[in-house]
Amino acid sequence: MPELRKDPVTGEWVIIRTERPYRPEDFRPLVPPTRSPGPCVLCEGHEGETPPELLAYRDGGEDRPNGPGWLVRVVPSKFPTLRVEGDLERRGHGVYDLMNGVGAHELVIESPCHDDTTASLSAAALESVVHAFQERMLDLRRDDRFRSVIVFKPGRHVRVPAGLGHPYSQLLATPTTPPDLSQELRHARSYFEYRERCLFCDILQQEADEGRRLVVDTEHVVGLVPFAARTPFETWLLPRRHVAGYEHVSAPERRDFARAMKAVLDRVQALFGDVAVAFVLHSAPFGDADAPYFHWHLEMTPSVAVPGFFADGAGFPVNPVPPEDAADLLRGRDG
Amino acid sequence: MPELRKDPVTGEWVIIRTERPYRPEDFRPLVPPTRSPGPCVLCEGHEGETPPELLAYRDGGEDRPNGPGWLVRVVPSKFPTLRVEGDLERRGHGVYDLMNGVGAHELVIESPCHDDTTASLSAAALESVVHAFQERMLDLRRDDRFRSVIVFKPGRHVRVPAGLGHPYSQLLATPTTPPDLSQELRHARSYFEYRERCLFCDILQQEADEGRRLVVDTEHVVGLVPFAARTPFETWLLPRRHVAGYEHVSAPERRDFARAMKAVLDRVQALFGDVAVAFVLHSAPFGDADAPYFHWHLEMTPSVAVPGFFADGAGFPVNPVPPEDAADLLRGRDG
Repeated sequence: MPELRKDPVTGEWVIIRTERPYRPEDFRPLVPPTRSPGPCVLCEGHEGETPPELLAYRDGGEDRPNGPGWLVRVVPSKFPTLRVEGDLERRGHGVYDLMNGVGAHELVIESPCHDDTTASLSAAALESVVHAFQERMLDLRRDDRFRSVIVFKPGRHVRVPAGLGHPYSQLLATPTTPPDLSQELRHARSYFEYRERCLFCDILQQEADEGRRLVVDTEHVVGLVPFAARTPFETWLLPRRHVAGYEHVSAPERRDFARAMKAVLDRVQALFGDVAVAFVLHSAPFGDADAPYFHWHLEMTPSVAVPGFFADGAGFPVNPVPPEDAADLLRGRDG
Repeated sequence: MPELRKDPVTGEWVIIRTERPYRPEDFRPLVPPTRSPGPCVLCEGHEGETPPELLAYRDGGEDRPNGPGWLVRVVPSKFPTLRVEGDLERRGHGVYDLMNGVGAHELVIESPCHDDTTASLSAAALESVVHAFQERMLDLRRDDRFRSVIVFKPGRHVRVPAGLGHPYSQLLATPTTPPDLSQELRHARSYFEYRERCLFCDILQQEADEGRRLVVDTEHVVGLVPFAARTPFETWLLPRRHVAGYEHVSAPERRDFARAMKAVLDRVQALFGDVAVAFVLHSAPFGDADAPYFHWHLEMTPSVAVPGFFADGAGFPVNPVPPEDAADLLRGRDG
């Protein structure tokens, strides 16, 4: 008998199928991993081919912006989804509302080496990447036009088009709260109004008590398959400490965050080989960075599916793998 | 400059890119159309290979259930997402809520001929198909366990796996309101509370006044590209008359509904060739079928995209085609 589970964070019901136990070999990558021969414009030595950098970490030595020697580098997108120039204009048009597309769209280049993948990076390298996320947010929050920042690697719902074959994340600063985040904020706020506790803190407590959906367990950061996971092997990373805005992450939390990411990426590779893992960092909007009802977290989604399986029943997510089974596989049955 | 537009029905902001005018030849099918050589289990003459029919239209002649001679036939799915047997059990589990997966999953076989496609059907044949949707809803609403019915053809967000190569729609009766519909109901209700008018009726009025996003204009049913379309060429069909539940559709409305569907499918074929068109019928839950705040409608999504274009900025839909341009193409520039 399938089960309908409600995600308390999104308020959405998900259909969890239970009739057939799948094995890792039943899954196929949704998209072939992007591999293009290098070098590309994001490679070390090609710094002149991107817009000037917004941030870079260089290991010791002298600081030469836009030269080689960096480990992580952040540059504006050459093909931005939103434009950083101009004032924000909000207006109505009859029953409709609109605003001009002001925002920032940046690329966080995760490695100087073309042939790296996010999964091939060391935990230390990932720590620099997630540090760059924080530093960019701290800079962008000073701009009054921006309400929210999302950091992501695409591919959750849609096919990722052929990319550059170089590992990078994207960052979008927006004048409005992104739809998915908006929905989570609404549910988390309504939970808090009723219980006067953070929904995510309660989830962490219940998950720690049950243990069945835990994947990674570090001092400061926990990884788990959510109770109503929408896709097989979806994994959330959350800090134990209640913090709404990711910009407030501490150094020890960053370290464990990177370690937890690395553990999940490694495990996904061990199970499915070289597949893309999409992610979205859900951080409270700048105005709510200290909110008692929200809790930053990273939602990771390995881009795998069972061939021939309908995953979308008209907006009803259908997940063929019970989250408890997915967690077993992701942490290794023996662990 | 891109534009951020808010869909008043979903409450979601969509990024509309405006910098580049695309031509029809810039688009590619997201998925190759499913073509498998027939006959298959859904074909005329193979009635014994499906579960017994729930409904069939046979043209004159004698009525022989589960024999040949039908035009449209509805059967339970052999691989149901939700199960029709058993009582509905709702329960809580700490912070979580769940219920067992009770529901009905049916296939509406749109033609006895394997090589037909939804687009190749005549308007008269489509009229029988949409009539079957209504008759099944009228039957399913008598089952107290079901709250809502969605009728759909998958493919909006995800790749459609290789199917049977036979044209059919799916129907899912659910014990809870599907997430997308829930969201629309909430926004439409909040609009009604404030204005005491139906949001969709107001949209129809404004769209008729402006005319820029209209695609099809029949006596009873209107087709338009929504103001904040999430994907290029998304088209909504709405009845002019305020009706929340599709089960209350009238015969003249069904006729115009089928004609409007046919017009959109024809135009999509003329523009892009043989591509799949996903759709979801949004009808009020049974308990709200007479609600003053909701208005049934069909959301059609041609499965085309610009290669290399990122359509999903971390939950922020990004649409490369302004709805006004899409409407121009869909209705033909000359008319």
